[in-house]
Amino acid sequence: MRIAIDAMGGDKAPGEIISGALESIELLEENDEIILLGPKEIVESRVPSKFRKGKVTIVDAPEVIGMDESPVDSLRKKRNSSIAIMAKMAKEGQADAVISAGNTGACVVAFQMGMRNLAGVNRPGIAVVFPTFEGPVTICDVGANIACKPINLYQYAVMAKMYSKNVLGIENPRVGIMSIGQEEAKGDETVKKARELMKADTRLNFIGNIEGKDIFKGVCDVAVCDGFVGNVILKLTEGVVDGLFKAIKHELMQEKLLLVMKFKPVMMRIYKKYDYNEYGGAPLLGINGTALICHGASESRTIKNAVLTAKAYHTKKINDKIVEYLSNTSVRTVNEQGS
Amino acid sequence: MRIAIDAMGGDKAPGEIISGALESIELLEENDEIILLGPKEIVESRVPSKFRKGKVTIVDAPEVIGMDESPVDSLRKKRNSSIAIMAKMAKEGQADAVISAGNTGACVVAFQMGMRNLAGVNRPGIAVVFPTFEGPVTICDVGANIACKPINLYQYAVMAKMYSKNVLGIENPRVGIMSIGQEEAKGDETVKKARELMKADTRLNFIGNIEGKDIFKGVCDVAVCDGFVGNVILKLTEGVVDGLFKAIKHELMQEKLLLVMKFKPVMMRIYKKYDYNEYGGAPLLGINGTALICHGASESRTIKNAVLTAKAYHTKKINDKIVEYLSNTSVRTVNEQGS
Repeated sequence: MRIAIDAMGGDKAPGEIISGALESIELLEENDEIILLGPKEIVESRVPSKFRKGKVTIVDAPEVIGMDESPVDSLRKKRNSSIAIMAKMAKEGQADAVISAGNTGACVVAFQMGMRNLAGVNRPGIAVVFPTFEGPVTICDVGANIACKPINLYQYAVMAKMYSKNVLGIENPRVGIMSIGQEEAKGDETVKKARELMKADTRLNFIGNIEGKDIFKGVCDVAVCDGFVGNVILKLTEGVVDGLFKAIKHELMQEKLLLVMKFKPVMMRIYKKYDYNEYGGAPLLGINGTALICHGASESRTIKNAVLTAKAYHTKKINDKIVEYLSNTSVRTVNEQGS
Repeated sequence: MRIAIDAMGGDKAPGEIISGALESIELLEENDEIILLGPKEIVESRVPSKFRKGKVTIVDAPEVIGMDESPVDSLRKKRNSSIAIMAKMAKEGQADAVISAGNTGACVVAFQMGMRNLAGVNRPGIAVVFPTFEGPVTICDVGANIACKPINLYQYAVMAKMYSKNVLGIENPRVGIMSIGQEEAKGDETVKKARELMKADTRLNFIGNIEGKDIFKGVCDVAVCDGFVGNVILKLTEGVVDGLFKAIKHELMQEKLLLVMKFKPVMMRIYKKYDYNEYGGAPLLGINGTALICHGASESRTIKNAVLTAKAYHTKKINDKIVEYLSNTSVRTVNEQGS
């Protein structure tokens, strides 16, 4: 399997990205290969020659798309950027998976255009795994599609369920739809219609509406929402956690130094257990390929874990399972009309 | 000032609600009066006779609207419920403020129908104050209006700003609009159009797009969003905090008991500092009256604080300030067309 990694994507690129890519090699199999994309001199200078014997290939991508650039404009102008080239490689069968911690919007556009949608899928969605005290919860979409139709939400449910089951190993993932109350009548028209589609699919293990707080309560394994709401959820959670840790630190500082020091390892354990870095990247579900988009603040272990996730996604044939599921669903007719 | 309180609203009613109402009396002025609504026998049995000399009036409201009942249906059927009667009292000038920790949807419908909108306001919105490490942030709307037009969002900005300034005492509140990235191009059409309205108003102190994490970073004092997104934000934050405290507790249990005990007062301080109960209720902004909707889990101090908030809202003439602002805004013409 050939895994292409954007060496220039993310706030800590290229250092942490390349480190993570190299660390992942020992976890891969004999026939696996890492492809690093970026300006040739920069990448080469950071890859020791011992790695360049068949395990790591460097592909020159002299242009870099900034984190805040307009996705469509930047892709049009920078055809030699790592994101554009890796999408092209996937399209032409030169890469089996792509990983980037760069500009999310540019990744979504490039990967979707390069690899196209899976049969039966109308719009791809980004799924993020939230590590919670009750177990991992997969949330889809978190930003690929901010104008969702009911059929998109239904398909996100199916795709995230396949991911949760086959990559995270959850037996029969429970699926909820994000709304503003548990009662059936709650939610806007799109949510209400999507709920009808999900209810009609008896294989889905659909539990109905969920609320914001339910994500952390262990009531569901998959939470479906539009990309606007999902993006707010993703960033808000980060903000609440950071804010709370800051508050705890501040309060501890009022106490004896000894208490601060004793509490530190506890904090570190929590950080590690509930850290998104451990889940290594968010799959772009619904495209005809394997693509992981990583957090802008990704560290080497995020990238290492993303490589493992890409490997699992590819090996377990998640895309085949999605296509098969959607080709057998009774909701399929709506698919053709409703999007 | 006559403040009507729904004795039967909330998970801890009537006990905590009536306790809070009675506790608030000593903080009020000579001419202030508390009106308690609920089934007469139940309320009377909990109010010692010493309070019933001009300070507390009990109004019989034999019917109770459950927390999960349909707002419109329940109001139609239960005309003698506390929520319906208090809305009628406000309409007829028998109450200057209403407070309920009951069914939020029923409160919004009843209060809006009873008191009508303020001049120049198209749709009321619920504002919630988030206590953050960097100071209080007012978020509007959190659930009154899930199908927002740009003009609604603009008016939420104005109303929440007036509240933040005059009730919370923030000099010139900075206003942000919730989106999925800081760049101008980010967000759906409604958000983009609302941003243009806010930008056009130079008095607003508008800072542009904010993301979920920014609420806790001290970048704004007011965050504007539609009621669906706001409701998810409200409940998600609750869920993250609960989940994190659960995780901390679990990790601490692995340590020595002494550490757990030493950390407990720190936790308690944090709970108290960042507790919504201290902000006592969410104002329904944009109606021609003073109405506070409290969390379903409200305790006596929530109600006591809500009484103080109602007093401040009324005394500082927030509604007059909103009407005056909106009558002088250049965005007013859009108001008449755009809703």
